[in-house]
Amino acid sequence: MSLHPQAEQRIRDSFSRQQALTLIGASLVAVREGEIEVALPYRPEVTQQHGFVHGGVVGMIADVACGYAALSLMPEGAAVLTAEYKINLMAPAKGERLVAIGRVVRRGRKLMVCLGEVFAEEGGKRKQVALMTASMMVLDAESGLRD
Amino acid sequence: MSLHPQAEQRIRDSFSRQQALTLIGASLVAVREGEIEVALPYRPEVTQQHGFVHGGVVGMIADVACGYAALSLMPEGAAVLTAEYKINLMAPAKGERLVAIGRVVRRGRKLMVCLGEVFAEEGGKRKQVALMTASMMVLDAESGLRD
Amino acid sequence: MSLHPQAEQRIRDSFSRQQALTLIGASLVAVREGEIEVALPYRPEVTQQHGFVHGGVVGMIADVACGYAALSLMPEGAAVLTAEYKINLMAPAKGERLVAIGRVVRRGRKLMVCLGEVFAEEGGKRKQVALMTASMMVLDAESGLRD
Amino acid sequence: MSLHPQAEQRIRDSFSRQQALTLIGASLVAVREGEIEVALPYRPEVTQQHGFVHGGVVGMIADVACGYAALSLMPEGAAVLTAEYKINLMAPAKGERLVAIGRVVRRGRKLMVCLGEVFAEEGGKRKQVALMTASMMVLDAESGLRD
Repeated sequence: MSLHPQAEQRIRDSFSRQQALTLIGASLVAVREGEIEVALPYRPEVTQQHGFVHGGVVGMIADVACGYAALSLMPEGAAVLTAEYKINLMAPAKGERLVAIGRVVRRGRKLMVCLGEVFAEEGGKRKQVALMTASMMVLDAESGLRD
Repeated sequence: MSLHPQAEQRIRDSFSRQQALTLIGASLVAVREGEIEVALPYRPEVTQQHGFVHGGVVGMIADVACGYAALSLMPEGAAVLTAEYKINLMAPAKGERLVAIGRVVRRGRKLMVCLGEVFAEEGGKRKQVALMTASMMVLDAESGLRD
Repeated sequence: MSLHPQAEQRIRDSFSRQQALTLIGASLVAVREGEIEVALPYRPEVTQQHGFVHGGVVGMIADVACGYAALSLMPEGAAVLTAEYKINLMAPAKGERLVAIGRVVRRGRKLMVCLGEVFAEEGGKRKQVALMTASMMVLDAESGLRD
Repeated sequence: MSLHPQAEQRIRDSFSRQQALTLIGASLVAVREGEIEVALPYRPEVTQQHGFVHGGVVGMIADVACGYAALSLMPEGAAVLTAEYKINLMAPAKGERLVAIGRVVRRGRKLMVCLGEVFAEEGGKRKQVALMTASMMVLDAESGLRD
């Protein structure tokens, strides 16, 4: 389901404040209620020693997609913080671009459990390269953090 | 235990071929048999929306420390590939620099299990900010990959 | 897709040799290619201190469903061994019975990556209570193990 | 550090209410502040198809050791619930008995992060067979649960 424009703006604003995402070249491609899509074009700057996109970078975009999927379901004033994530790297991350899709599978008041999938796109085809599960903490206004 | 200079060089060469590590500003600070230390000075470019070092970047340096800890125990000609990792982010990653220590806890022929710990340093003090466990695959020469 | 009767028998035989599964009262309810379903009726004997099914028991049936999903895709003579699993317990496991569904998401020659989901059934309704990802090792005949 | 006798009794009482632990034959062998030890003698009833202790049972005792390590640091009236755990099974669990040691590595107000290690004992020797990391939720009295 699509989000209220204001709620979408909240996520886009938060995303743009993440300098680490600018550094790797990630962008938000879709914002839905409880589901977020993040893209990363292939660039030599994000590769590991064998020329694939670094597993840590793959983890980063999956974590971000999961985190904003969780934030999209949180009340205004709350902030999201990753408590933990686990990623299985199933195939070398190579191709024209990577797409990470994060989805909330359990909407808790204090913790949200998310599933993240990362796909490599090449010549119009998609291949899954990673699978993540993550726990996102819901912080309230007292934390001093936002979004 | 310290590594044979040739074995250490193999790891330093592989590390320097990882463009993603240059991008985030990580460096190798210690190479021992089965144990590797990676440092990352704080820079605004690697932060998330609240000004902490991005959890994905924290995961990246822990993954790298674990991966090279595993490679340090592999026969020449073998290559290391991360099969999976899981990270618990225990405290906001802030400070002057982060240090990730990766250590092999189980040396298998096909899989090595590693433990990674990430510390934030500030004013001469160290605080643990993350805990990782990871499985590293040992690829033989047939894989076409090296180191 | 349904399995060849001989392949299904191989899984049923292996399952029935697992005394730990008899102990907790688990049974195989569906065997498909790359997808297995395991059921566990509620019994006080498998509960933790608050009266829910123990999280370790929930993990056990999800691990078993994932393991046999992997074995269903392995050549004859191979054996399956769990390398690692991670489980998010999303809601208290209570109800008339639990059903764990394991599915292979990445079929590798040496490692298979599986996704497991556990549901609690009560009054004809299903609620997801846990989410697992797991790595299953493919052992060849040299290991001395089978199935 | 040793616990106050009342605090130790709280853990022993909770442990003895876990019927699943009686079923598998687990017992509490040490209760310290933030660190718990659980033992499981080898019995055919807890094995998998190859005669090793079932990976799910290994996960169960590690989860329990971690959970009570967390509870030992919680205020009276609070309850512990496992949010997630991940386990790497590093070697077949065989021997005379297993010992799981759980330790709190991060004491948070809402979440405690624990490290669990499982050892197999045989002929006076100990071998590590599994490594766990886990997140334990701290539930307050409003949850309606205790210990």
